[in-house]
Amino acid sequence: MTNLVGKDILAADQFNMAELELILQTARQFDTISSAGGTLDLMRNMILATLFYEPSTRTRLSFESAILRLGGSVLSVAEAKTSSSAAKGETLYDTGKMIEGYAHVAVIRHPIVGSARELADGASIPVINGGDGAGQHPSQALLDLYTIQKEKGRLEELTVTLVGDLRYGRTVHSLAPLLQHFGTRFNFVAPSELAMPAEITAGLRAKGAEVTETSDLAAVIGQTDVLYVTRIQKERFADPAQYEALKGAYVVNNALLQQAKPDLTIMHPLPRVDEIAKEVDAYEGAAYFRQAANGVLVRMALLALVTGKI
Amino acid sequence: MTNLVGKDILAADQFNMAELELILQTARQFDTISSAGGTLDLMRNMILATLFYEPSTRTRLSFESAILRLGGSVLSVAEAKTSSSAAKGETLYDTGKMIEGYAHVAVIRHPIVGSARELADGASIPVINGGDGAGQHPSQALLDLYTIQKEKGRLEELTVTLVGDLRYGRTVHSLAPLLQHFGTRFNFVAPSELAMPAEITAGLRAKGAEVTETSDLAAVIGQTDVLYVTRIQKERFADPAQYEALKGAYVVNNALLQQAKPDLTIMHPLPRVDEIAKEVDAYEGAAYFRQAANGVLVRMALLALVTGKI
Amino acid sequence: MTNLVGKDILAADQFNMAELELILQTARQFDTISSAGGTLDLMRNMILATLFYEPSTRTRLSFESAILRLGGSVLSVAEAKTSSSAAKGETLYDTGKMIEGYAHVAVIRHPIVGSARELADGASIPVINGGDGAGQHPSQALLDLYTIQKEKGRLEELTVTLVGDLRYGRTVHSLAPLLQHFGTRFNFVAPSELAMPAEITAGLRAKGAEVTETSDLAAVIGQTDVLYVTRIQKERFADPAQYEALKGAYVVNNALLQQAKPDLTIMHPLPRVDEIAKEVDAYEGAAYFRQAANGVLVRMALLALVTGKI
Repeated sequence: MTNLVGKDILAADQFNMAELELILQTARQFDTISSAGGTLDLMRNMILATLFYEPSTRTRLSFESAILRLGGSVLSVAEAKTSSSAAKGETLYDTGKMIEGYAHVAVIRHPIVGSARELADGASIPVINGGDGAGQHPSQALLDLYTIQKEKGRLEELTVTLVGDLRYGRTVHSLAPLLQHFGTRFNFVAPSELAMPAEITAGLRAKGAEVTETSDLAAVIGQTDVLYVTRIQKERFADPAQYEALKGAYVVNNALLQQAKPDLTIMHPLPRVDEIAKEVDAYEGAAYFRQAANGVLVRMALLALVTGKI
Repeated sequence: MTNLVGKDILAADQFNMAELELILQTARQFDTISSAGGTLDLMRNMILATLFYEPSTRTRLSFESAILRLGGSVLSVAEAKTSSSAAKGETLYDTGKMIEGYAHVAVIRHPIVGSARELADGASIPVINGGDGAGQHPSQALLDLYTIQKEKGRLEELTVTLVGDLRYGRTVHSLAPLLQHFGTRFNFVAPSELAMPAEITAGLRAKGAEVTETSDLAAVIGQTDVLYVTRIQKERFADPAQYEALKGAYVVNNALLQQAKPDLTIMHPLPRVDEIAKEVDAYEGAAYFRQAANGVLVRMALLALVTGKI
Repeated sequence: MTNLVGKDILAADQFNMAELELILQTARQFDTISSAGGTLDLMRNMILATLFYEPSTRTRLSFESAILRLGGSVLSVAEAKTSSSAAKGETLYDTGKMIEGYAHVAVIRHPIVGSARELADGASIPVINGGDGAGQHPSQALLDLYTIQKEKGRLEELTVTLVGDLRYGRTVHSLAPLLQHFGTRFNFVAPSELAMPAEITAGLRAKGAEVTETSDLAAVIGQTDVLYVTRIQKERFADPAQYEALKGAYVVNNALLQQAKPDLTIMHPLPRVDEIAKEVDAYEGAAYFRQAANGVLVRMALLALVTGKI
């Protein structure tokens, strides 16, 4: 039978369909229990270590909330980069050997690709990648998947439009290949400077996915079931003028939504700045804050599954 | 019946008499149980988020101790100013929308007036203001009130002398209007540069309070039931020489106490530096460390009341 | 009957033999329960405050893991130096008075010798020294002792070789006097610049200990039961060239181990950098990661004993 006991969660593409379904189904169970006001005590006496070598308050709090809701507890290192061990030159491999003596499962966030793998090589306990630089952030992709399924009632046969910074956006790089399993039709909407990397687009097409690339959001909004918005980050541009020119290009507001399907779902990994107008918050399909809350459920599922507590 | 379920706690002056009494009475109950060695489990499975955009170790630990003593748990952001979300430009409104998915109640500390209100506007969970700049710090005022009642056996008919920096001291600005409900006679003792703002004094007098303003502590110490000392902060002065001239003006020591009523109660929001001599610690009426401990009880009361767990 | 209820743990040399045996025996009990998959709830409803005025991730997490495994909870101040109270000039004595209102036991780490004592003077709750500058770090010495006993099956009649920076290494300064109780034969291996302080060596000899001092590790490795390796720290040297010359002097690797007893135990307080080659990790006697895990058990013992929960 499919299970994830003892497994590290390092990349969104590590899962087969049975594993994906197991995660989504477990999150759904937890959702049902939580919504009914129930509480869970599955991970009582278990400790999660959160090792954050760069700040990511949302990801850290989401994982910590998840373990607490399962009855467990937390060892928190919010500023691991300045930790004494890292400063003294300890390898992540050795940090892994250390943390296995202190906790039952660990989440790591690190600016360098491959860091989660290095920690996992050292640690005998399950390690979850909470984002490693331009690399992977699998729990984000899974919560996106869970949100789409919950909002639309299904994952199959959807048209998903990804808009904004598709070049540097780790989130969309992980999500698109996951959605491809479910026959998603893609629209990739970005200025050419921030287009989806060619190898990802080519990879999706090679597996039979229908992908439309455009810089015109209005042209595709009417055929979109799920609009996934990402922030265009100033720090990506050498030339500030170029940033100023592009940043307003894809603002989602009520005017744009008038051209959308009435049941459009709008998602965003947050934090949002100006790319979704505040007026949109009142829209029924504005799912981005629910998406954030779903992160706790999906992370509860991951924690309970890798420790064999469900 | 009076209750505070689902309410935000944003300002000391938001409470009517029934609500004040409810808070004090709840704290008293918790005090009785704790003193008898009992434990409480009222908030089991509930999570408090502490979002501190400026350091305030005492306030943060006091709230965190409160939720732990109620059987709940904590999501702690001790350095929220440098959090990734704040750095990326997320509004406090959006942070509120996020945190409601992670926790059941939140405390915010922020250097800017109105911040707690902005977070509360976003969050559907109760928000407690842990101090917003020159604005409010309601739980401090409530614990001061609780301490006076506990030390003196009553709140009515007391002469309370506030001494030190009455101009910038947020604590005394919140406490004085609360005490006014109970017919307190006030002495405001400060150098003219640090006098109580005229609008507060005028407001108290307009409601019938008896207020004496002086710069001479010795002149009023003999008629004082409660002496509330605040620290004169160096950072308030452009001219260091002026600070040096004023800082020693109101040092409470044994010599001063010889002129005081034998049952004088001495309070201080802490940390104290030199404004209360260490020799005073041995004095029976030195209540400032008990006052700090009372902070946990009052914050337990607030947490349990706003979440409807009592 | 011997007990430690209400005691502060400030220095490794504060314990008599009965107390040492009580601590080791309690750790052993917890070890047995943990190894059998059991859980402990001895400190339910009790709060540990960890006050770290300098970073020491390993020590902090180890103590926090210890209280969590006992069913208790944590108030964590990972950056106490920048705490608002310390910044405003509060004494550690006053901090002690504060923390006794918030927690049931406290651990302090501080760069200045005597800090733990100052906090303990203020606090009515038990205080544990988690390292104060060049001073003491008693829980480290105790976990070293526990590890030797567990790895070798006994503490008596062993030859222990301490190698590396014996001049500044707080760890070895605390451990050697403890081992002396058990008739240990010592080899102190260091370059002359980093030799064990003469007063420690003299003190051991005065109590009858057999001590050999040398700079040649190979000369003594064959007669060694326990090899305790410490890191030579760059920051100890005014002249970087001197550091470069010395740092490679005592690298433990497979070539060296060929000259060792087959049942040699290798220890290190961690983090290790280059002084133990990674190839050594596979060696059965490489106990340094087990040693780190033992730290949790010994700290559980200390916490439970000083709070009278066992």
